[in-house]
Amino acid sequence: MGPGPDALTAIGKWPKVGYDKLVMKMILLSTALLLCAGSASAAIQSKVIEYPQADATLAGVLVWDDSISGLRPGVLVVHQWLGITDYEKHRAEMLARLGYVAFCADIYGKDSRPKDPTEARALTTKYKSDRPLLRARVNAGLAQLEKSELVDTNRIAAIGYCFGGTTVIELVRSGAQLNGIVSFHGGLDSPAPADGRNIKCPVLICHGADDPFEKPEDLAAFENEMRAAKVDWRLIKYGGAVHSFTQPNPGFTDPGARYNEKADRRSWEDMKLFFAEIFK
Amino acid sequence: MGPGPDALTAIGKWPKVGYDKLVMKMILLSTALLLCAGSASAAIQSKVIEYPQADATLAGVLVWDDSISGLRPGVLVVHQWLGITDYEKHRAEMLARLGYVAFCADIYGKDSRPKDPTEARALTTKYKSDRPLLRARVNAGLAQLEKSELVDTNRIAAIGYCFGGTTVIELVRSGAQLNGIVSFHGGLDSPAPADGRNIKCPVLICHGADDPFEKPEDLAAFENEMRAAKVDWRLIKYGGAVHSFTQPNPGFTDPGARYNEKADRRSWEDMKLFFAEIFK
Repeated sequence: MGPGPDALTAIGKWPKVGYDKLVMKMILLSTALLLCAGSASAAIQSKVIEYPQADATLAGVLVWDDSISGLRPGVLVVHQWLGITDYEKHRAEMLARLGYVAFCADIYGKDSRPKDPTEARALTTKYKSDRPLLRARVNAGLAQLEKSELVDTNRIAAIGYCFGGTTVIELVRSGAQLNGIVSFHGGLDSPAPADGRNIKCPVLICHGADDPFEKPEDLAAFENEMRAAKVDWRLIKYGGAVHSFTQPNPGFTDPGARYNEKADRRSWEDMKLFFAEIFK
Repeated sequence: MGPGPDALTAIGKWPKVGYDKLVMKMILLSTALLLCAGSASAAIQSKVIEYPQADATLAGVLVWDDSISGLRPGVLVVHQWLGITDYEKHRAEMLARLGYVAFCADIYGKDSRPKDPTEARALTTKYKSDRPLLRARVNAGLAQLEKSELVDTNRIAAIGYCFGGTTVIELVRSGAQLNGIVSFHGGLDSPAPADGRNIKCPVLICHGADDPFEKPEDLAAFENEMRAAKVDWRLIKYGGAVHSFTQPNPGFTDPGARYNEKADRRSWEDMKLFFAEIFK
């Protein structure tokens, strides 16, 4: 994802200058353009989109860079237990700056925004206890992302944080066709491990090696689910990281959930490398 | 690591042509130069270097790209159980093409090249049973790498395969100061886990999720060693990969040791990302 053809074409509009200066400018500027390709001046846009799932109305956020043109891969972003917050929107912006169209899916519904961890826990419990509903909600978000006229529907990924990590795994357990998914400190347990056979895309699990919220038996069961279904999976354990390691403000205080700058940065780079592979 | 200043300077020697053609050529060529920076025409050189450790004479192989100039990071490459083979030299060449100086360390000694798995097993058993000797041998290799006049001794990493993976972990357990190490399908067990406290650099473990040669208890003990010593570590499990997943010709037939193209490619990319971090 670099600057579009327009950026290079614009070079032809330079005023005519002396030969030597021109040569120098050509080298410096086309060098700069290419070296800065990943951070070309971006015009990030976003809009809230309401969309239905059965009787519910969900409200997601689409984020893209309108300084680039043409179809591009789409990335579904699934929220943590507090629902869509500035955190998810920020991640979507980061993805848009990388050249993707990002859509923050809404699992809870437009009028359901938990105010505190107690309400958040009630909601995650509801959806984790009703996996068919969870799958229906996240699939509705995927369908909405694919409706964007900017998205190359042959190149779709989903990422999720905590509850959202669980949710993107449920998305592919449901049989949804994507190019890949990434879970960041997501719960890995499944009430129906045989559904692992529905996963047809590469899976990247970014996991805090000291996450006390993920029981060793759930981690082992997840690995066995992947093995049994011959899924193309990999799992990265970040030493020293606990739960919520990418989240500077998890919304509660618990030594088992803490931001870890190194693990955050590294897992984002690992995701980018994963995307480079699945979208090549 | 891109083309040196000479490559860009050479552009100034182009014949003078019409303005439009010049503009087009400047854009196309400087674009090509930059996009191809990672694969700039390389002149890979190598030489065998004999060096001592106590009474033993070891014979390693130094590999570098002499089309680039100046100091560059050094990477020690430690062999699998068959000793230095074409496999290790090929990895060293791959590293040299990335712009590093690579040195294939010799652990066994110049006259000790096992002919078959039986001899190889006897040697690995010898060194894994005598960790002080193993550490002395690998430290001798590190010292030799650092003697190269091409190496920036402030930027040193070590990588190793199978037995060599174990060995690079022993290197840092011994207190050697490096910027980072990468173990590919290395044995992770340690007879002296308290020595983990000597590890002061980032550690990347690339592990086959189905490696039957690495016992779950050894894996767990390794993680606990890292935790207890507060090492900056991460471990990647590649789904579907067994032992020797980077090695197309492991030298023996065993369903527990098999090449895995995806895990090979991905672990190499993971190593490159790790190097980008530790050498930045």
